[in-house]
Amino acid sequence: MKGVLQGDRVIFGTDAIPELYETLYYGRVRGDKLELALVEAAYLLDREKISVTADGKPLGFRELFILASQAQELFELKYIVYRDLRERGYFVQPGVIDFRVFPRGGRPNVVPSRYFVHVISERKPLPLADIVGNLQAALNVRKEMVLAIVDEESDITYYGVKANVLKGQMAPPDVGPVPGSATLLEDRVVVWDRSLSEALHAQGFYGNPLDEQRLQLSLVESAYLIMRHKLEVADRSGAPVALDTFTERALAFEPDFKRKLLVYADLRDKGLVAKTGFKFGSSFRVYEHVESIAKIPHSRFLVDAHGFDYVFHLQALSRSVRLANSVRKEMVFACDKDGESTVRYFSLGRIKL
Amino acid sequence: MKGVLQGDRVIFGTDAIPELYETLYYGRVRGDKLELALVEAAYLLDREKISVTADGKPLGFRELFILASQAQELFELKYIVYRDLRERGYFVQPGVIDFRVFPRGGRPNVVPSRYFVHVISERKPLPLADIVGNLQAALNVRKEMVLAIVDEESDITYYGVKANVLKGQMAPPDVGPVPGSATLLEDRVVVWDRSLSEALHAQGFYGNPLDEQRLQLSLVESAYLIMRHKLEVADRSGAPVALDTFTERALAFEPDFKRKLLVYADLRDKGLVAKTGFKFGSSFRVYEHVESIAKIPHSRFLVDAHGFDYVFHLQALSRSVRLANSVRKEMVFACDKDGESTVRYFSLGRIKL
Repeated sequence: MKGVLQGDRVIFGTDAIPELYETLYYGRVRGDKLELALVEAAYLLDREKISVTADGKPLGFRELFILASQAQELFELKYIVYRDLRERGYFVQPGVIDFRVFPRGGRPNVVPSRYFVHVISERKPLPLADIVGNLQAALNVRKEMVLAIVDEESDITYYGVKANVLKGQMAPPDVGPVPGSATLLEDRVVVWDRSLSEALHAQGFYGNPLDEQRLQLSLVESAYLIMRHKLEVADRSGAPVALDTFTERALAFEPDFKRKLLVYADLRDKGLVAKTGFKFGSSFRVYEHVESIAKIPHSRFLVDAHGFDYVFHLQALSRSVRLANSVRKEMVFACDKDGESTVRYFSLGRIKL
Repeated sequence: MKGVLQGDRVIFGTDAIPELYETLYYGRVRGDKLELALVEAAYLLDREKISVTADGKPLGFRELFILASQAQELFELKYIVYRDLRERGYFVQPGVIDFRVFPRGGRPNVVPSRYFVHVISERKPLPLADIVGNLQAALNVRKEMVLAIVDEESDITYYGVKANVLKGQMAPPDVGPVPGSATLLEDRVVVWDRSLSEALHAQGFYGNPLDEQRLQLSLVESAYLIMRHKLEVADRSGAPVALDTFTERALAFEPDFKRKLLVYADLRDKGLVAKTGFKFGSSFRVYEHVESIAKIPHSRFLVDAHGFDYVFHLQALSRSVRLANSVRKEMVFACDKDGESTVRYFSLGRIKL
């Protein structure tokens, strides 16, 4: 079958419709023509199913590939992903978000498509807002959202993006105010009172023991305990530190402290236990339930908190997700719009399509 | 025994020397006095081995701790690390780089110290030049360099820092120039020539097959092959692209391309195989030898390339090292001084002291 390259399409006559479209599900019918996208045409040309001409002259694969890479942004990457999916037996149709992919074995016009696949270059920074927007678009039509990231050596990593509803089973600790019990030192708080230290640590897995009698709290833990459990914190001179002063002091150490506290509080309020994720390079590691501190369970999530205007660098994103996977945790991103107090969560995980 | 707080020292008379210094190895003798560092004094006060007064008044642990945290930068963190090491049976002496630590079971004045331990806050950015400088200082006196990073919840992670000499066993590929064999597309190169594609991939694990006939090369691979193996690259119009033009084009996609190429070339020239480390969030994954591409071995190193003026953020550093450890690779940092072509390597790994 012979097609003609026109811009970013290759056009065929009616005769191509029965085989290419109705049997093999390539292209889209427009009037009495069949239009193939460039990735479809390059793929079929390589398999010698079609021939393509431009300005009356036949094109080899190499010529078409070079022309296509000029005509369409990220063509090479799209081709690599398209070919990979097709070779592994998926039916793929070019769509608004790059590709609509049908479930394995499922044929177009028979079953609905299952995935929206978005092709991304490792080199291109990815705005968080784009992920959230595309995820919402996919969810609205009940599709699964997939990112296909192509690295500099043209290897593909597929990530599934999911919306998360986090929920834990922890009850709040049974503690009340103990005057003079805690001091804000440089960038952490020490609780001197032995029974308060024990209650906070045992009932909520708050802090880390300094020794057998005293507990160290992080800034975000302390701020939350001041807010929700009337923790009384003093400065080194013994003067009480109210929440707003505390927050101001914390901001000097952590410019992103307000966002961190917002997400921390949201997680704790939902009955989850959030602890520092430093050893995993994340904001938090999160447990659904810590029944006893003598037997700390596996933490299920790693959570990073970002603003809605955050832009991911894909190498760092790849590292986060890979690390989370390697320690059998789910990599979750928390985001909030400036000025709103609602926190949204989505997770990214490598998937084998 | 009674000591007196003076600035950032607690001073004892001669009578304290036999027990505290000669038997338990605390403090330093100055004239007929024994001086304890604040961490030593706080530790001994908590264990009720000593008492401390300031301005004639006795200090409780809480008072001393608060005063010390004002008198010495990072006192809380140093105390946490000091206590941890002591509790686990190490003899520790305050030194120029925070602590000199003796081998397990080894006593000061009997065996030499083994580690230089540098205490760092998770929150404080760490200049690469500091790591290299401290590593050199430790190596000069044959000590091992250890970073003790204290996170916001006062957990300690110990990292060992080592200088690396990397060496591989790969012979250069047996390829020559093939005119018109490769095209620079957007941000990658396609080799159209089948036998060149096969030779590059099979003999040097260069590139990634586009299909059975053609090979895709990354920008850094292509530049290296132009430099060392006379690869001929053309642009889309067929005009040859020389190395300097190629580098300029690559810089548009990778601002750090020159450094990346310097390190890549150094690794390849040393007989190692460097491939993209994207899936691990690093610049390169590195193999000592790839005998056959039918059976790719485990890559032993992850390498990140940085300038000498680079500053690590410890959360990201923690993530890199943790990820490398979790996939059984060594996390190596390559660095070069601007204008010099020598690349130095050091690695960081979690250690259990």
